[in-house]
Amino acid sequence: MTKSHTAESATLTGVIPPVCTPLNPDFSVDTASLVRLVDHLVDGGVDGLFVLGSTSEVAYLTDGQRRTVLDTVVGHVAGQVPVLAGVIDMTTPRVLEHARVAIEAGATGLVATAPFYTRTHPEEIRTHFRTLAARTGLPVYAYDLPVSVHVKLDAGLVLDLAAEGALAGVKDSSGDESGLRRVIMGRQAPFSVLTGSEVTVDSALWMGADGVVPGLGNVDPQGYAELYRCAARGDWEAARAEQERLARLFEIVRVGGARMGGSSAGLGAFKAALHLRGVIDCPITALPQIPLNDDEVGRIGKLLAGAGLL
Amino acid sequence: MTKSHTAESATLTGVIPPVCTPLNPDFSVDTASLVRLVDHLVDGGVDGLFVLGSTSEVAYLTDGQRRTVLDTVVGHVAGQVPVLAGVIDMTTPRVLEHARVAIEAGATGLVATAPFYTRTHPEEIRTHFRTLAARTGLPVYAYDLPVSVHVKLDAGLVLDLAAEGALAGVKDSSGDESGLRRVIMGRQAPFSVLTGSEVTVDSALWMGADGVVPGLGNVDPQGYAELYRCAARGDWEAARAEQERLARLFEIVRVGGARMGGSSAGLGAFKAALHLRGVIDCPITALPQIPLNDDEVGRIGKLLAGAGLL
Amino acid sequence: MTKSHTAESATLTGVIPPVCTPLNPDFSVDTASLVRLVDHLVDGGVDGLFVLGSTSEVAYLTDGQRRTVLDTVVGHVAGQVPVLAGVIDMTTPRVLEHARVAIEAGATGLVATAPFYTRTHPEEIRTHFRTLAARTGLPVYAYDLPVSVHVKLDAGLVLDLAAEGALAGVKDSSGDESGLRRVIMGRQAPFSVLTGSEVTVDSALWMGADGVVPGLGNVDPQGYAELYRCAARGDWEAARAEQERLARLFEIVRVGGARMGGSSAGLGAFKAALHLRGVIDCPITALPQIPLNDDEVGRIGKLLAGAGLL
Amino acid sequence: MTKSHTAESATLTGVIPPVCTPLNPDFSVDTASLVRLVDHLVDGGVDGLFVLGSTSEVAYLTDGQRRTVLDTVVGHVAGQVPVLAGVIDMTTPRVLEHARVAIEAGATGLVATAPFYTRTHPEEIRTHFRTLAARTGLPVYAYDLPVSVHVKLDAGLVLDLAAEGALAGVKDSSGDESGLRRVIMGRQAPFSVLTGSEVTVDSALWMGADGVVPGLGNVDPQGYAELYRCAARGDWEAARAEQERLARLFEIVRVGGARMGGSSAGLGAFKAALHLRGVIDCPITALPQIPLNDDEVGRIGKLLAGAGLL
Repeated sequence: MTKSHTAESATLTGVIPPVCTPLNPDFSVDTASLVRLVDHLVDGGVDGLFVLGSTSEVAYLTDGQRRTVLDTVVGHVAGQVPVLAGVIDMTTPRVLEHARVAIEAGATGLVATAPFYTRTHPEEIRTHFRTLAARTGLPVYAYDLPVSVHVKLDAGLVLDLAAEGALAGVKDSSGDESGLRRVIMGRQAPFSVLTGSEVTVDSALWMGADGVVPGLGNVDPQGYAELYRCAARGDWEAARAEQERLARLFEIVRVGGARMGGSSAGLGAFKAALHLRGVIDCPITALPQIPLNDDEVGRIGKLLAGAGLL
Repeated sequence: MTKSHTAESATLTGVIPPVCTPLNPDFSVDTASLVRLVDHLVDGGVDGLFVLGSTSEVAYLTDGQRRTVLDTVVGHVAGQVPVLAGVIDMTTPRVLEHARVAIEAGATGLVATAPFYTRTHPEEIRTHFRTLAARTGLPVYAYDLPVSVHVKLDAGLVLDLAAEGALAGVKDSSGDESGLRRVIMGRQAPFSVLTGSEVTVDSALWMGADGVVPGLGNVDPQGYAELYRCAARGDWEAARAEQERLARLFEIVRVGGARMGGSSAGLGAFKAALHLRGVIDCPITALPQIPLNDDEVGRIGKLLAGAGLL
Repeated sequence: MTKSHTAESATLTGVIPPVCTPLNPDFSVDTASLVRLVDHLVDGGVDGLFVLGSTSEVAYLTDGQRRTVLDTVVGHVAGQVPVLAGVIDMTTPRVLEHARVAIEAGATGLVATAPFYTRTHPEEIRTHFRTLAARTGLPVYAYDLPVSVHVKLDAGLVLDLAAEGALAGVKDSSGDESGLRRVIMGRQAPFSVLTGSEVTVDSALWMGADGVVPGLGNVDPQGYAELYRCAARGDWEAARAEQERLARLFEIVRVGGARMGGSSAGLGAFKAALHLRGVIDCPITALPQIPLNDDEVGRIGKLLAGAGLL
Repeated sequence: MTKSHTAESATLTGVIPPVCTPLNPDFSVDTASLVRLVDHLVDGGVDGLFVLGSTSEVAYLTDGQRRTVLDTVVGHVAGQVPVLAGVIDMTTPRVLEHARVAIEAGATGLVATAPFYTRTHPEEIRTHFRTLAARTGLPVYAYDLPVSVHVKLDAGLVLDLAAEGALAGVKDSSGDESGLRRVIMGRQAPFSVLTGSEVTVDSALWMGADGVVPGLGNVDPQGYAELYRCAARGDWEAARAEQERLARLFEIVRVGGARMGGSSAGLGAFKAALHLRGVIDCPITALPQIPLNDDEVGRIGKLLAGAGLL
């Protein structure tokens, strides 16, 4: 296990979108749409999949639904690409329960945040990740998402945990590119640095990041795959042009505006776009999120058309 | 159900401590100690119990452990006092799962926070509580805990939900006594306003609050029961003197200081005190909390002695 | 100086409203209205005045305007009651400049926040207040206003500074009544604890606070004076009734709602009420605050009428 | 005026370091050292100077000291490079006072934050910048510094103000590279986008930023000038290498660590480095900042040596 762990963590690069979770009108998981979405992503050229992350509405899915998603995606992918599983919960014991399920389902790696809801401390965050690594045997990726967790992972702590082997990588959705660079410059290989940004992927790759986990990659996987390939072959001008096209497309997440929460606006936009593109059957989001209205969906359609996706 | 709901919510008053969850050295729930703790509280004169709240380390308990706690406490209490159950999770669907278990176990009412981890919105919080009320049939108490949830429940929203019957009460641990007063003055009976403060109970009762949910009540239930009785009979001088004694005792939560998170320091202190008083067998707290050391436990002992509890 | 310092700080009790700064339509200080406002307050029975606090729009006043306010108020009061002067600025050297002006003008004491704008530290806050005390020779009151300063003054630090004589008191506008009680219980006399709350004055006095600095006291000084007198003579029921009347009146600060900042809504409401009551000539607030519109002023008028003030 | 305004704002590019303010042991401004620092920067190849920014300890300087700095620098520079002046204060009227002084002193442009200390609103921020532009006649640059101002300038608002001519540019020290890109992509020329980051300059320039305002540029102006020239001629590999060298040097700001505030650690490190390099006579920082100790200064010396600067 340790050997394959190292091998895997060393090779986690490229585009690994956080997979949306299509729902039926009764809020159950729409596995048929989920399978189509997986095909849409894999056919689009992505290098891995991340299920049960924030973009997957993991915070809204019951444990049963989480298991359905895992079984559906891991089963359908059948080893074509790595499948990382989010194990998002408040503290170590609850995260370990999700990890057990993910391991049984055959996930390639685990993605965990620092503790949340509790008032935590850097030394407790250290213990948390160490415990996850020691008890699961799978590569653990730290998910740095201060907007949800209300703690920023310190670059020094991430580098410590990388050096001792407790972390195989980091998914940095903090928006703090200075901290991202500090981790990139300070890490010892192999340690995968993945940006969670949709709009600074070219610059993150330029700094030395290994890959990207873009929610918008659900909508346009080819775009991010192309962006990554351009960067990989050193054609940075083309990478930037593609990134700028995708940045304009990313305006879809602002359509919902101030009448709903940021999660509703972002996840709702991704699902509306997937529905407009014919990938999923129903754009519904889980409760208590506020749905986009017809006018808003229309504006998303126009942004999609502007990006050449409709 | 609706009838008993109204009856129950109308009568939720007094001291309802959030019950600590004793753990064995292997981190499993120590049900024998839990039963002793329940007896300690009920014999101490409390008016109800709140299990699976923050003080219960609910954020650290697996679903199996949560069920064990519920079954143990509801079973042992056997109707002597109401038992409220925390249904703490990120969003409506996950909270509803916990609610189902709590209802099966026989809880008297449910205590839920606003959504967390997700980026939410007041209208989503409204939908959240409405949905919980409509689907569970039990009285729902809003748990206002910005230090964990990172959202303050607006007094106007709480009053709206009270007026339409979606909320049976609020447990206000926000520390915002102005907001507390706004709810007290604005509510229409029956709506239970409970303060989560350990040290401003006399003043909250003075303003018109119905009761208190003090974590420190685990350590000294007689103290809070006495404080409540003094206030209830209008002997405010005696209530204040008792409150001041308890406020001095509350210094135990500051012993852990800056070398650990606030949860570790607070919950660790309550458990250390319960252990020193002989109520529970083991003072251990769940991972990844940092344990108090011998020196710190010694200082807690001195504070207990100073309060006449050792 | 030290002697009178001690004497003064020992006796600072009662109602000390933060005095609004009336402006002319060209945004200059309307000294005639300011004098009328001072008379309105002193005749209303207040025990002191606090000029150049947040309610005085100190953040908006130029240094010249601050001096005009000081000279006008100190000159007109002529020793009838103590006049505290806010010395609100980012750091020690700038605060000392304001202090020099306040001392020249004859202020009785100084009110200073922790440093803001800079990223500060508890030991720097300690140095800040120590330096102010050492260099000014006047009683220094700490102004705890996290909503503006983005730091909460720690009760332990306040008590340290009180014990060493660097602070003569605290104006607690943090809304954290637990911290307020900790200071009240931990202080050694003489140290004035003043609450900045408009709606929990009875409970703060009940806990042992010495006085109150209510922005709403501009509008209804008699109300707060009556509340304080009731409490002072032990008639707590009457104090509560008066407090509840004032709490209903305080709803005027919510009229502006979400279309403006909290400062605009609060300060605008106080000034609109003073204008409606005939105390000041013009309700204008300083730039870039958004003015209340006619409808909003009308609603403030109704709340005034409801409180028996129109 | 409008014509030269446009011309100037169109040409603000390159390296514009925020100039430290050397102090004498008695905390007065050390103008001789300041002149040497200006020469060090101009000789080092910078394209402009920004005085009275956060790195200049503007929050700690009295109005008299601010004027001394302005007169000294503008006088000495004598038009060789543009000199931007920070006009940092809480609200519009106070900022306008600083602007008046800066205009008299001959500053080329003004740098202003959103209002702080007050509880503000986007529409008030809009009025604030509009008023500054209308009343000063100089190019106004928005200073986006949430760590001090506790408000993030919204990209949409910045673009609105740019489109209407109220803003000539933005200095983005928010660390939010997604927002930076949104402004870069959305602006209409001429509008100068300057990053305040020390460690992501190559990527900001890559995205299309016009320049950089690096505090660390005080210590190594040649480094940033070289970085900018590499980028300007399209040699991005060399730009990245230089950036990475500077990023390692930037570790000096972490030497002070948790025993002081972030301002003390950062500003203290810059001044210690300038003192070690022989540019300024005394490394003292203004009160109430905590000074670096000998051991810490020694570690800064080692980092300087490692960067080839000692």
